Amino acid sequence: MERRQFLTGAALGGVAAAGLAAPAIAQSRKEMIIVSTWGRDFPGLGTSAQRLAARITELTEGRIVTQYFAAGERVGAFDSFDEVASGNAQAYIAADYYWIGKHPAWGYFTSVPFGMTNSEWNAWIKFKNGQALWDELAGEFGLKCLPCGATGTQAGGWFNKLIETPDDLKGLKMRIPGLGGSVMSKLGVSTVSLPGGQIYENLVSGAIEATEWVGPYNDYFMKLYEAAKYYYTAGMHEPGGGLSFGMNASWWGSLTEWEQAMLTAACYEELANQAEEAIANNGVYLGKLVNEHGVQVENFSDEVWDAFGEASAEVFEETADHSALASKINDDFQASLKEIGGFMKNFEIGFVNQRNRVLGL
Amino acid sequence: MERRQFLTGAALGGVAAAGLAAPAIAQSRKEMIIVSTWGRDFPGLGTSAQRLAARITELTEGRIVTQYFAAGERVGAFDSFDEVASGNAQAYIAADYYWIGKHPAWGYFTSVPFGMTNSEWNAWIKFKNGQALWDELAGEFGLKCLPCGATGTQAGGWFNKLIETPDDLKGLKMRIPGLGGSVMSKLGVSTVSLPGGQIYENLVSGAIEATEWVGPYNDYFMKLYEAAKYYYTAGMHEPGGGLSFGMNASWWGSLTEWEQAMLTAACYEELANQAEEAIANNGVYLGKLVNEHGVQVENFSDEVWDAFGEASAEVFEETADHSALASKINDDFQASLKEIGGFMKNFEIGFVNQRNRVLGL
Repeated sequence: MERRQFLTGAALGGVAAAGLAAPAIAQSRKEMIIVSTWGRDFPGLGTSAQRLAARITELTEGRIVTQYFAAGERVGAFDSFDEVASGNAQAYIAADYYWIGKHPAWGYFTSVPFGMTNSEWNAWIKFKNGQALWDELAGEFGLKCLPCGATGTQAGGWFNKLIETPDDLKGLKMRIPGLGGSVMSKLGVSTVSLPGGQIYENLVSGAIEATEWVGPYNDYFMKLYEAAKYYYTAGMHEPGGGLSFGMNASWWGSLTEWEQAMLTAACYEELANQAEEAIANNGVYLGKLVNEHGVQVENFSDEVWDAFGEASAEVFEETADHSALASKINDDFQASLKEIGGFMKNFEIGFVNQRNRVLGL
Repeated sequence: MERRQFLTGAALGGVAAAGLAAPAIAQSRKEMIIVSTWGRDFPGLGTSAQRLAARITELTEGRIVTQYFAAGERVGAFDSFDEVASGNAQAYIAADYYWIGKHPAWGYFTSVPFGMTNSEWNAWIKFKNGQALWDELAGEFGLKCLPCGATGTQAGGWFNKLIETPDDLKGLKMRIPGLGGSVMSKLGVSTVSLPGGQIYENLVSGAIEATEWVGPYNDYFMKLYEAAKYYYTAGMHEPGGGLSFGMNASWWGSLTEWEQAMLTAACYEELANQAEEAIANNGVYLGKLVNEHGVQVENFSDEVWDAFGEASAEVFEETADHSALASKINDDFQASLKEIGGFMKNFEIGFVNQRNRVLGL
C-alpha cells in the first residue's frame, strides 16, 4: 500500500462521489500515521491491520488519510507505544499486553489467563465497564485505545517434547508474553517476550525451545513446525486475544464527533472481521499443519490445567497488589467474567457441547 | 425517532461538519425507508434495529437519511418482506427464517437446528460461501441482504410443565418459527409462528402453551413468566440467531460504492453490537427472572437432545429435497459447520470447558 496511491485515490474518490469543493477537502483532511507490531503482509494479524488502515481512508473518503507502517518500517514493533504516546505517530495497532512492563493492567486489554473469550471480552469492553477502565489506564500514558481486532482463543503453543505433567514445563525456555507469561514463570518456565518477526529464528537456533503465537491460520505461515513438532490446542493464556488501536489522546481529542464515530465504526468492524476470518480459516490450516507437515496435535491434560489455574490465582493476586487502578480493573474483570461466563455455560457452551455430542463433532 | 428530527439533524450535521455546498447535499441525499419485524423500543431486538437506522444517517452525515418504522407502524411484522421486495420500502430488519414458507433455505440465514453459533455463522457469511449463497437466494426475490444483528444462542423456551422426555412434547401448542419449528412438529408439537408482539396475549389466553423467544435479556421484558414457569436454557433451534438487513435489490444496485460500503460497515457494526449487548446483559436478567419472578431454570436432558437430533436430520433431508438451491445451501452450511465446529471444539470450547471446570463456574 503506497502513500501515493492513498492520496490520489482518496482525492479522486472524494471529488467524484460527493462533489466536494477542493478547498473543503484541503481544509478537513487529516493525516494519520499508524505504526504496528505486526509484520508487513503477514496473513491474519498483518493483513487485518493493513485492511483497517485502508478502510479508514475509504470510509472517510480521504478526510482521514492513513499511512501505515508495519513493524520495523518506521519503528521497531515494541517501540510503537512510545512513538504514539510522544505524538510522533497518531496510532498504533498492537496487543496491549506487550506493555505490562509499564503497567500490569495492560494485560486485561488483550487477554489474561483463564479470562474471557473474544465475544465475552467484547461485551465487557463495549457494554460493561471495560472501555471506561481502558480509558483510565490509557489516559495515564496519553493514549486513547479502541478494540480493533481479536485472534480468538489461542493455541497452547509449539513444543519440542510432550507436556504431560506440570514437571515437563520446568526449565523450558519459552516465548510467551503478557500475564500468561507470568503464569508460566511460576511453573518454572524461563519466559521471554519477542515480537512475531523474531520468533522463528530464535526457535530454530535453540535460543528458545517453545513458543506460542496465535492459532493454526496465523501459525502456519510462521513455519514453526520446522523446529517444534508438538502443537497444543487451547492454552490458558489468551482466550480472546483482543487487539488495540492505540491513539495519541490529544490527537483523538482534536477530532470532530463524526471523525471519532468513523474511527470507532472502522475499528469495531475490523474487531469482528479479524476474529471471524480466523474462525473461517483455522480448521483448514490445522488440517494443513497435520497433513502437509506432520504436526502432532495435543491437548493439555487436566493435571496441567489445574497447575495453570493455581499459578494464575497467584498472578492475579500480585497484579491487583500493584496499584489501586490495577486492583480496580482486576476486580471488575473477574466479576464480569463470573457473571458472563456463568451465563454462557448453559447457553452457547451448553448448546455446543450438546451439538458436538449429538453430531459426533 | 421522528422523521422531522432526522432530516433537520442530518442537514445541519452535513453542512457544519463537511462544509458541503447546499446543491451537493440535495443532489446526493437518498431517502431510505426501513420497516421491521420488531416492536418499537423493545429492549434488545427493537433498540438494536433503531440504533442501526440512526447510525446509517449519522455515519453518512445524512447522505442516506433513514426513516424507521417498527412492526405495525407502516406494515405488519410479517408483511416486511413484500413491502421491500415490491419497492415500497428500501429495507427491512428481520429474521429471515420468517420467510421459510416462501423458500425453506431462508432458514439458514437466521439459524438452523444444531447449526452454527453467532461467531461461526459470521465466519461462514463473511469469510466463506455464506454471503454468496444468501445473495443467490435473495436475488430470486429481488432482495439483497446483509447480516445486521444476532441474538446469540437462544433459550429453549418457556413451558408450563417440565419437559423431561420427548414424550412430554407431544400435543403441546408452541410458538416456534423456522426449521426449529419443523423439528418440533416431527416430535408431535403443534407449532405456530407468531411475531413477538403477539406472543404474550396468546400465551396468557392459552392459545399456545409454550413459546421460545430469544434469551433472558429480551425475554424479561416480554413477561412470559406470568404464564409459563419453566425456562429452558440452550435450545437446539437457534444457536446463532442472525438477523437480516434485507434491501430492495434494485435500490442497492443504484447506490454508489461508498454508500454500499457505509451500509455494510453500519450493518457489520450492529451485527456485533447486538450480540455483545445481549451477552453483557443476559446473566443479569437471568438472575432477575429467577429472583424477582420465581422462574425455574432447566436444561434439556440428553434424551431430549437425542430426539431433537433425529428429528433435525429428517428436516434437513426434506429441506435439501426442496430444490437444487436448497440442497446447495444445506450442503455448504453443513460442511462448513463440520469444519469450523470441529476446530472450535478443541480451541474456544475446549478452553471454556477447562476454564469453567478449574474456576468452578
